Amino acid sequence: MKPELSIVKIGGQLIEDDIRLSRTLASFSRITGSKILVHGGGKKATEIGNRLGIKAPMVGGRRITNAQSLDVAIMVYGGLVNKKIVAQLHALETNAIGMSGADGNSILASKRPVKDVDFGLVGDVNKVNSGNINKLLQTGFTPIFCALTHDGNGQLLNTNADTIAAELAVGLSSYFETTLFYCFEKKGVLSNVEDEQSVITKIDTMKYDSLLQNGIVADGMLPKMHNSFYALKNNVAKVCIGDDEMLNGSHSKFTTLTL
Amino acid sequence: MKPELSIVKIGGQLIEDDIRLSRTLASFSRITGSKILVHGGGKKATEIGNRLGIKAPMVGGRRITNAQSLDVAIMVYGGLVNKKIVAQLHALETNAIGMSGADGNSILASKRPVKDVDFGLVGDVNKVNSGNINKLLQTGFTPIFCALTHDGNGQLLNTNADTIAAELAVGLSSYFETTLFYCFEKKGVLSNVEDEQSVITKIDTMKYDSLLQNGIVADGMLPKMHNSFYALKNNVAKVCIGDDEMLNGSHSKFTTLTL
Repeated sequence: MKPELSIVKIGGQLIEDDIRLSRTLASFSRITGSKILVHGGGKKATEIGNRLGIKAPMVGGRRITNAQSLDVAIMVYGGLVNKKIVAQLHALETNAIGMSGADGNSILASKRPVKDVDFGLVGDVNKVNSGNINKLLQTGFTPIFCALTHDGNGQLLNTNADTIAAELAVGLSSYFETTLFYCFEKKGVLSNVEDEQSVITKIDTMKYDSLLQNGIVADGMLPKMHNSFYALKNNVAKVCIGDDEMLNGSHSKFTTLTL
Repeated sequence: MKPELSIVKIGGQLIEDDIRLSRTLASFSRITGSKILVHGGGKKATEIGNRLGIKAPMVGGRRITNAQSLDVAIMVYGGLVNKKIVAQLHALETNAIGMSGADGNSILASKRPVKDVDFGLVGDVNKVNSGNINKLLQTGFTPIFCALTHDGNGQLLNTNADTIAAELAVGLSSYFETTLFYCFEKKGVLSNVEDEQSVITKIDTMKYDSLLQNGIVADGMLPKMHNSFYALKNNVAKVCIGDDEMLNGSHSKFTTLTL
């Protein structure tokens, strides 16, 4: 029987709001066993970028990462947000260590190939160095990942935080019975986006297909669901989507996904 | 016999100039045995701060760290500079892991007590968690420290990079035969600041006292020398001051300090 690992991705308003972030980190600190946190950067990167006069160019509604906007991401995700979370977690007696995919060579990626659009310095994950990450877990550290990867040749790359969480979960499932938690401001996948209480508590592959066919899943939720089933199909034991109360093991509603 | 550890602090123009930084990192990557890098942030923090409209207030010619200028330090030292160095070192096959004093609870500090001046969010080091840092070294990681510490209660603090290097060297000397390298753009401690070749190759306690009495050591060098003798008096085996060629084990001149 493999030991348990919890991988918690936090994003959305949980990162924006200091009080909510503190509450979420307190819940995370109470999770027993090995654990990893993955965070996005929220609107802070856009705000700092605007103040520096750096705007990520948009092509066809998609954001492009150029060298300047990557620097903003490195400063805000890798610096400001990551280090503040690490410092807060130590006050909660969690032995946090802040990481990008470059640290410990933990997440190798390649610049996304150009098809219709050149997304710039955006990385598609090639390999999770689960050996190095496992060493950190085994020596009692709790890695805190920001949404940056590297190409192994000295170039940092921007990678979606949901994707990083899923790839870490897949990579570490050779060592662990892994549960992946996508944690944000909503209580789970909703059958009616207008009704916060309409949480679909269980979604399996069949249900997922019917939700997709009926167009019930909202746009913002699609990549999360896609990442969830990618993880499940690659040996991740369980995926849960919900708000920070989900981490407390309370009886609050959330969505559990299984194959 | 304890194993050897090299702690290399890089600062000044070695950080400012991308080509010189690359050359210095290449020399660092060739050091055999356990090693730690400590870096300052150079003028980049001032530049980013200016662009954000954040200026560290000055009192009596001394820089004060307020909440906003600390955020700039966290972004630039902990994010931009640290992560780029880490990514570059992996391209040089060094298993670098970026750290602040908060990561792994590695350097605990207290806000500097107010005497004449309130320096704000500046940390005086209380304790180096050499156990956690040694675990990283033993598992094959090379820690890359920026000049940030924390108070254990969730607050990050600004700490001088020379001081961090000396405190790390002292803390880790219980496990290692430690050499501390202060590496910058000059060839060492100069007897004549106008003459780059006037390197004083050996300084012991007596020589240090006579240099101080004769006012030969330049102002900028005094804190480095103070840190060096603090380290030597606290079980650090050797301290060297010089430029990046010193790291190559070449026959270039540099200054060696001993008790």
